[in-house]
Amino acid sequence: MDTATSKAKDEAQIRKLMENWADALKGRDIDKMMANYSPDVVVFGFAPPLQLKGADQYRQNWIEFFNALEGRIGYETRDLEIITHGDIAFSHFLNRINAKMKGSDDGEGNWMRVTVCFRKIDGRWLVTHEHVSCPIDGRTGSAVLDLEP
Amino acid sequence: MDTATSKAKDEAQIRKLMENWADALKGRDIDKMMANYSPDVVVFGFAPPLQLKGADQYRQNWIEFFNALEGRIGYETRDLEIITHGDIAFSHFLNRINAKMKGSDDGEGNWMRVTVCFRKIDGRWLVTHEHVSCPIDGRTGSAVLDLEP
Repeated sequence: MDTATSKAKDEAQIRKLMENWADALKGRDIDKMMANYSPDVVVFGFAPPLQLKGADQYRQNWIEFFNALEGRIGYETRDLEIITHGDIAFSHFLNRINAKMKGSDDGEGNWMRVTVCFRKIDGRWLVTHEHVSCPIDGRTGSAVLDLEP
Repeated sequence: MDTATSKAKDEAQIRKLMENWADALKGRDIDKMMANYSPDVVVFGFAPPLQLKGADQYRQNWIEFFNALEGRIGYETRDLEIITHGDIAFSHFLNRINAKMKGSDDGEGNWMRVTVCFRKIDGRWLVTHEHVSCPIDGRTGSAVLDLEP
């Protein structure tokens, strides 16, 4: 059964998971961040490789990311949609991580497109797939990073 | 109820939808291709904009894509996963469209990462979200197009 009540409850749980993730990002709390991912998560990330398999590998990416930054980390999202049914869910939104790379003055991030897919495993929602990207200019082959939602 | 039988049936229907889409792509049949999309589909595409809303707008992209190509269109996928429950589903895979751009000799495409999310509406599976991308080299800001799965 998938009643309106259970759907609303599932959506609230996923929204909470995303808030916890954002808090962990801002607090540079890698353990709290990674607690949201299934051990066998499949990630299509902003940077190579083409795909990354497993939370252990993804954890390394975030450690390198944190090491490249200095100062305060800000986080914004736009156009969040969450769709749930039973023990699966998917969501899509735009996000922007605002932080200074070491040696840079610019603390404003670029808007990214994010798709996150979830499964409820042993009563708990976990991310089993994440896809983060920005569009490419087909003529130059360069990332188009200055787009506003 | 979401029995093993209905899950298998839903997965088979989605697999069939993807095969139809690939046949339509290879046959340059834009109507058959677009029949798979919900009118309010949200697309995070390979090229700008950041996001595209609605099947009518997405249709224009495919028309421009077909106009830029000449000759035979080939299509390959790898690592397809489909997860369904009740009236929603998501899938992720790698794909490659092999075709010559007009004026080019190279007919081999680049591997892309694709996430597709579905909803069953009036008994029929439709794509409500699609995300297509390739990774970016963080130092140069260029798309990394030569990655092999």
